[in-house]
Amino acid sequence: MATQTPGYIQNQDALLKRLRRIEGQVKGVERMVTEERYCIDILTQISAAQAALDKVALRLLEDHTRHCVIGGGDADRDELTEEMMGAIERLLRS
Amino acid sequence: MATQTPGYIQNQDALLKRLRRIEGQVKGVERMVTEERYCIDILTQISAAQAALDKVALRLLEDHTRHCVIGGGDADRDELTEEMMGAIERLLRS
Amino acid sequence: MATQTPGYIQNQDALLKRLRRIEGQVKGVERMVTEERYCIDILTQISAAQAALDKVALRLLEDHTRHCVIGGGDADRDELTEEMMGAIERLLRS
Amino acid sequence: MATQTPGYIQNQDALLKRLRRIEGQVKGVERMVTEERYCIDILTQISAAQAALDKVALRLLEDHTRHCVIGGGDADRDELTEEMMGAIERLLRS
Repeated sequence: MATQTPGYIQNQDALLKRLRRIEGQVKGVERMVTEERYCIDILTQISAAQAALDKVALRLLEDHTRHCVIGGGDADRDELTEEMMGAIERLLRS
Repeated sequence: MATQTPGYIQNQDALLKRLRRIEGQVKGVERMVTEERYCIDILTQISAAQAALDKVALRLLEDHTRHCVIGGGDADRDELTEEMMGAIERLLRS
Repeated sequence: MATQTPGYIQNQDALLKRLRRIEGQVKGVERMVTEERYCIDILTQISAAQAALDKVALRLLEDHTRHCVIGGGDADRDELTEEMMGAIERLLRS
Repeated sequence: MATQTPGYIQNQDALLKRLRRIEGQVKGVERMVTEERYCIDILTQISAAQAALDKVALRLLEDHTRHCVIGGGDADRDELTEEMMGAIERLLRS
């Protein structure tokens, strides 16, 4: 099911930049726990990291839809659509 | 609204261990993007990180409820409950 | 684990009003499907119903926390907190 | 952006059946509130209705992707993809 070039290739740098920021947010949460910061403030930070991960996921999904599902050959589309729906389902449950 | 000792203090080590694992998952996602891995596989990893963050959030929320909201003085409970509901609302939206 | 009077008793009318509106939203979705309306418009309606259900859930949770978990006797609090966390977890997964 | 026949047309009856069941679930929640049932049991029912709505949404989304986004003409695909991503984003936030 793999494609030669992933759909997000043109956004690779932007994605990495966002992911590094999310890594920083998670490190920030660790620091807050170490410093025994207030529970609710930590939860706010976690929600921010979750929202940022959601955005990365939506970006990947959009690139995947455009370049792999739609742009791909007719042969695989059914399988590709099914696979994409599975990914959306997992995101909804998270 | 801060308390001297946060509700999660007895789980501090376990929480930090989980958060370091989540940091590792986010780094794993970065690596996958760098290596131009398949979109859907990356989305699966992001869902795993989201689920792990949800678990940390639920843990923090439980400790907060037990030790701060319930265990705290009567005086602040209304405000504490409201604050906690705000945190749950933010988690639901993520 | 049941209490004599549920925590939401003072908001019972307001809750019923909201729930009837949500019932109407679901009926609206049925009508849209019958009328063969556009998929995306139906999805927008479903998201609206979901958001309205989230609000009812948060309201119930808040009333439960205030009146049953906090207001209840010391004896049951551990069990009540655990039960409440289970409910929050189920909401997060929905 | 509307299409002549919606993507879900072949699943129309199955969708309506599911939606009627969800309507019944919401009515069940109303009844529980009227009968002053236990908060946590009501929350469990709400989570069940949410999960059922998620499934309907995923079904609609899949049919839409297969028949409208992929099956549609090349001209509209960019707009259709964008529109679909908007719908997924709204579902994730609910």
